[in-house]
Amino acid sequence: MSLEKIAVVGASGYSGEELLRLLIRHPGAELVAVTSRQLAGQTIAQVFPRFAGLRYADLAFIESDVEKIVATGARIVFLALPHGVATEFGRPLVAAGLRVIDLSADFRIKDVAVYQDFYGEAHAAPELAALSVYGMPELYREKIRSASLIASPGCYPTSIILPLHPLLQRGLIQPGSIVVNSLSGVSGAGRNAKVDYLYVECNESLRAYSVPKHRHLAEIEQELSLAAGETVRISFTPHLVPVNRGIHTTICCAPAEGVEAWHITNAYTEAFGREPFIRLLGETGLPDTKHVVFTNFVDIAWRHDPRTGRLVLLSAEDNLTKGAAGQAVQAMNLLAGLPETTGLL
Amino acid sequence: MSLEKIAVVGASGYSGEELLRLLIRHPGAELVAVTSRQLAGQTIAQVFPRFAGLRYADLAFIESDVEKIVATGARIVFLALPHGVATEFGRPLVAAGLRVIDLSADFRIKDVAVYQDFYGEAHAAPELAALSVYGMPELYREKIRSASLIASPGCYPTSIILPLHPLLQRGLIQPGSIVVNSLSGVSGAGRNAKVDYLYVECNESLRAYSVPKHRHLAEIEQELSLAAGETVRISFTPHLVPVNRGIHTTICCAPAEGVEAWHITNAYTEAFGREPFIRLLGETGLPDTKHVVFTNFVDIAWRHDPRTGRLVLLSAEDNLTKGAAGQAVQAMNLLAGLPETTGLL
Amino acid sequence: MSLEKIAVVGASGYSGEELLRLLIRHPGAELVAVTSRQLAGQTIAQVFPRFAGLRYADLAFIESDVEKIVATGARIVFLALPHGVATEFGRPLVAAGLRVIDLSADFRIKDVAVYQDFYGEAHAAPELAALSVYGMPELYREKIRSASLIASPGCYPTSIILPLHPLLQRGLIQPGSIVVNSLSGVSGAGRNAKVDYLYVECNESLRAYSVPKHRHLAEIEQELSLAAGETVRISFTPHLVPVNRGIHTTICCAPAEGVEAWHITNAYTEAFGREPFIRLLGETGLPDTKHVVFTNFVDIAWRHDPRTGRLVLLSAEDNLTKGAAGQAVQAMNLLAGLPETTGLL
Amino acid sequence: MSLEKIAVVGASGYSGEELLRLLIRHPGAELVAVTSRQLAGQTIAQVFPRFAGLRYADLAFIESDVEKIVATGARIVFLALPHGVATEFGRPLVAAGLRVIDLSADFRIKDVAVYQDFYGEAHAAPELAALSVYGMPELYREKIRSASLIASPGCYPTSIILPLHPLLQRGLIQPGSIVVNSLSGVSGAGRNAKVDYLYVECNESLRAYSVPKHRHLAEIEQELSLAAGETVRISFTPHLVPVNRGIHTTICCAPAEGVEAWHITNAYTEAFGREPFIRLLGETGLPDTKHVVFTNFVDIAWRHDPRTGRLVLLSAEDNLTKGAAGQAVQAMNLLAGLPETTGLL
Repeated sequence: MSLEKIAVVGASGYSGEELLRLLIRHPGAELVAVTSRQLAGQTIAQVFPRFAGLRYADLAFIESDVEKIVATGARIVFLALPHGVATEFGRPLVAAGLRVIDLSADFRIKDVAVYQDFYGEAHAAPELAALSVYGMPELYREKIRSASLIASPGCYPTSIILPLHPLLQRGLIQPGSIVVNSLSGVSGAGRNAKVDYLYVECNESLRAYSVPKHRHLAEIEQELSLAAGETVRISFTPHLVPVNRGIHTTICCAPAEGVEAWHITNAYTEAFGREPFIRLLGETGLPDTKHVVFTNFVDIAWRHDPRTGRLVLLSAEDNLTKGAAGQAVQAMNLLAGLPETTGLL
Repeated sequence: MSLEKIAVVGASGYSGEELLRLLIRHPGAELVAVTSRQLAGQTIAQVFPRFAGLRYADLAFIESDVEKIVATGARIVFLALPHGVATEFGRPLVAAGLRVIDLSADFRIKDVAVYQDFYGEAHAAPELAALSVYGMPELYREKIRSASLIASPGCYPTSIILPLHPLLQRGLIQPGSIVVNSLSGVSGAGRNAKVDYLYVECNESLRAYSVPKHRHLAEIEQELSLAAGETVRISFTPHLVPVNRGIHTTICCAPAEGVEAWHITNAYTEAFGREPFIRLLGETGLPDTKHVVFTNFVDIAWRHDPRTGRLVLLSAEDNLTKGAAGQAVQAMNLLAGLPETTGLL
Repeated sequence: MSLEKIAVVGASGYSGEELLRLLIRHPGAELVAVTSRQLAGQTIAQVFPRFAGLRYADLAFIESDVEKIVATGARIVFLALPHGVATEFGRPLVAAGLRVIDLSADFRIKDVAVYQDFYGEAHAAPELAALSVYGMPELYREKIRSASLIASPGCYPTSIILPLHPLLQRGLIQPGSIVVNSLSGVSGAGRNAKVDYLYVECNESLRAYSVPKHRHLAEIEQELSLAAGETVRISFTPHLVPVNRGIHTTICCAPAEGVEAWHITNAYTEAFGREPFIRLLGETGLPDTKHVVFTNFVDIAWRHDPRTGRLVLLSAEDNLTKGAAGQAVQAMNLLAGLPETTGLL
Repeated sequence: MSLEKIAVVGASGYSGEELLRLLIRHPGAELVAVTSRQLAGQTIAQVFPRFAGLRYADLAFIESDVEKIVATGARIVFLALPHGVATEFGRPLVAAGLRVIDLSADFRIKDVAVYQDFYGEAHAAPELAALSVYGMPELYREKIRSASLIASPGCYPTSIILPLHPLLQRGLIQPGSIVVNSLSGVSGAGRNAKVDYLYVECNESLRAYSVPKHRHLAEIEQELSLAAGETVRISFTPHLVPVNRGIHTTICCAPAEGVEAWHITNAYTEAFGREPFIRLLGETGLPDTKHVVFTNFVDIAWRHDPRTGRLVLLSAEDNLTKGAAGQAVQAMNLLAGLPETTGLL
């Protein structure tokens, strides 16, 4: 099997590090470049001691320069950059004929007005946002295969869209009734030296944040609205809790008239029963992030509550794997024509 | 000031230990007995090395025997016993004229049918349940002063009832719209040697449990229904997260017709503005359990979400202090005619 | 490549679970049986939800019965059993011609008097202890290849023997000067439902235990004495600290007359410079367990302290991987004639 | 009782916050000023939400200006400033006749050459270092009572000096044999926004640091040498472990000729048997930081190891309380003529 040549731009954060963890062991990929402004010249092992002794340990970071990246022969490029910076690299790389998988939010929002509302500035590249495919294989598998630009989904969105999509698509729940509460590990805040994310500030601490308007709502509602065929607005409260990795999401919503528990079970089986990275725990199981961390799985369970008539949907994922780098590699496998689970099980 | 003589029955668990922590430093209480079947004969310092060197360190546990407790001259007795056992001690102690503060759920539910529905067995002492006062000073201050039996509230209920009560009482929210998600530290599971609560099973783990019918719903809905003047049913999902202490609660609900954010703010100020243990963080603050652990405070914040029209209410407390032992001591202060904050600030 | 048929006896604990984690992804092994008295009939996915969706997820546990194990065609059997139970299975399995890798302490101690001193009972199978090979490939690679019974090393011993062995063997340090302090994650205590290992008892807790005579001293001193060519007695204090996985070891010792820092560096390079699972961090690096967890690496660093004249040796490993299951799989690779790193990088 | 007027300079870090926690509840102290360059104008409750609702919650930080501090009428001033800054405030405050308790290292080292060796710069105020009293009441109680400048001990030094002092003073151990390993919670690193102390970098991480020459060695060896009557050099390896608070120290050393276990026990009883903040756990107990956090206690245990002939001494303390702010308040009580335990039990 000839290996797909891969570059990673901006691998200094937690998502970039997770990408490296996956690519190092990926049997179908050849990592030809890692780039970073501040790390150029250092090897992967120097920057990430955990990767010493492994494949690519001695690969040195190069400058994040488009020409240099193209010169490496890379065919697929991951962008693991802060919000707002991805456009700068995405445009010339796509123009140069490389296929780009962006882990930031830059290309996820199709409606530039929504983007401006949530991100507080005009969209820098509407034509790329229009071109991009939302990189969730369970929803857009075929489009991903032929895409030139993948907007890889956010961590919260993955944990929220997947449990809701099959139900909204089938009209099984009332779109206006959705209340979402998510818990996230601290790696979700990035490798940023801020007092708020110091060990002592996060350990033995439980707190909500970005109430009531977290930026991820933009892409969540975009995809849920597409599923429902109508505008969906949800309540979403994210919480920061003291684990390194993992997101747990709990969703309350009202079933549509006449919907019973078995309709829900059937919908999930139909939509996800053959998905390699969705594990359906059914009406008795309960997700636990400790069973999904360091994997690309999303675990989903559901309950009907006869007391209130509501449904409770629950999901767990690793925010850095299925919620970021793992899902991006899943998309890469599709782009490269590899079996979708390559390097991910 | 003559000291109030106090006994603690069944102090081997985390709530009992927290009671001792508070009573050791309480300037108005004299601890005359601690009892425990399995610990009888050992001193407080032997059982709880953290209390060595403090007042009462050498007080020895005695058998949990009603006659012996009465013989100590105790006037107020805390019961820190497992569910179902409190009745056995509560009945004779009340009959003997002692005033009893029970930390279990045994006397909290007035409606024996509801009790049976949630606890799976007939209520053992309906007459005591009828007699008891729900020990939440913010709601029942005057009744507590003269009560002979206090049913001290549960940890989740305290964090949920307090933010909702003023709003339901004033008709500011729709009673059928309430969705509650709570996060609890592991001490809430008690000092029980079960694999599920081992360090390795809880650390780096996020999980919901008791979905959709946690027992605490019985007392939560009882008090919310009283506030609303109608039957209230809520959705409630508790989560176990890796902290020792603390509960964070996030509530979504719909305001009543015409209600605006300032109505909510006014209601909280009116209801709780002078409460010594409720800190109102308003429409900009956000509770964090690290600011309330080892205190008797509940922090409450709220938001109106113009996108969905819903309200988000947030609270944080220490499950062992305001959620258990601290609130019980607050009630003890009322029973004893002491300033309510004695030993709690 | 024809796959080596493998069985795992007693896979219900943390080491057994880690063995499964490694074997599921091992390209040269075919897992033909997992056994457990209490889990028989359940599948791997039911017992360990994290393995659902992976290879062998539907393999059911069978009874821990020697005849049944032999009947599966397994050629190599891992014993992941509590201390004292391994002999019961090891003897008949070896007699039946299977090759056995035991993760317990049962066969590690060659001197039955030492065994009795540390384990408090007569050795149940001295002839097997004599036959067994201590399964540390860095020391006994060739013997392991042809062994019929491997006594896989303990977690602390691996972290202690590896940094000391090259120095003692070369006479570079004074054997009587060794003081070892190790920190272990809580998985080292096993999946046992004891109050001492509850989340609340371990979180925010730092404590030494088994002072001054931990059982692992028996095998540590056995191997160090062999290296030194004389009897070595060390001071060893293990500590329980709140992480799930990982051991950090710090060793103080006096160099032999005339030994300088570069002798130490040379000795490590000579002994371990080509070892695939030992990473030498030298005189400037410092091991951190977060860089070795979920890997089979041991990281080793060293310092000469001119103020005291002593050496400080530091190591980090994952107690469940290089300290247990990973090292056992490394031995399996040798037994099976596979490249030693197969399935471990 | 007339209250002692107190100021705290530089209360923005963890030690300053702990000082406030203790002073808020201190019955003999009146806090008249808190100062901070960057926090001036904000109230204590705004800076530290955990103190909202308590005494002094509305006290506003003022500029760290000596004249303003003097103008408040403060008689005792705590300096909770970074290393190197304390001199700037200590000199004029002492000159103005205020009594100063400094929590930094600036005045702890009597020998300016040692200071320069460990801190890399000339001492800025040798005359104040000469004047200062090392603020460990167990060693210098009488001197503290009349001191004008207290150099409050460091966190590691407290945990190391206390177990060793009585033994060195009595000639019971060999001064050249001491090997110390300490584990510290992350609050010891201060409230500094550095990547190394982010939650994700510290959680699930165990690492040594400052090997082999931590700055605290200067004051440790100063005090141990005074106790021994000769120069003492020790090996000391500090470790960073994932807890918020607490230091655990394990010391290995050789007894002097003819010394037996009971000599050690007698020495501790003689030296510390009546100390209010030292709890002697003897030859069977083992310290655990969870029993000392949020207290001013140091727990000490010891063992003789007949196998090696060495002694093992173990201690646990809260690095922010007995290791910093609590010990400083203990000294304040002595300065103010209050019972030494006031506000600390």
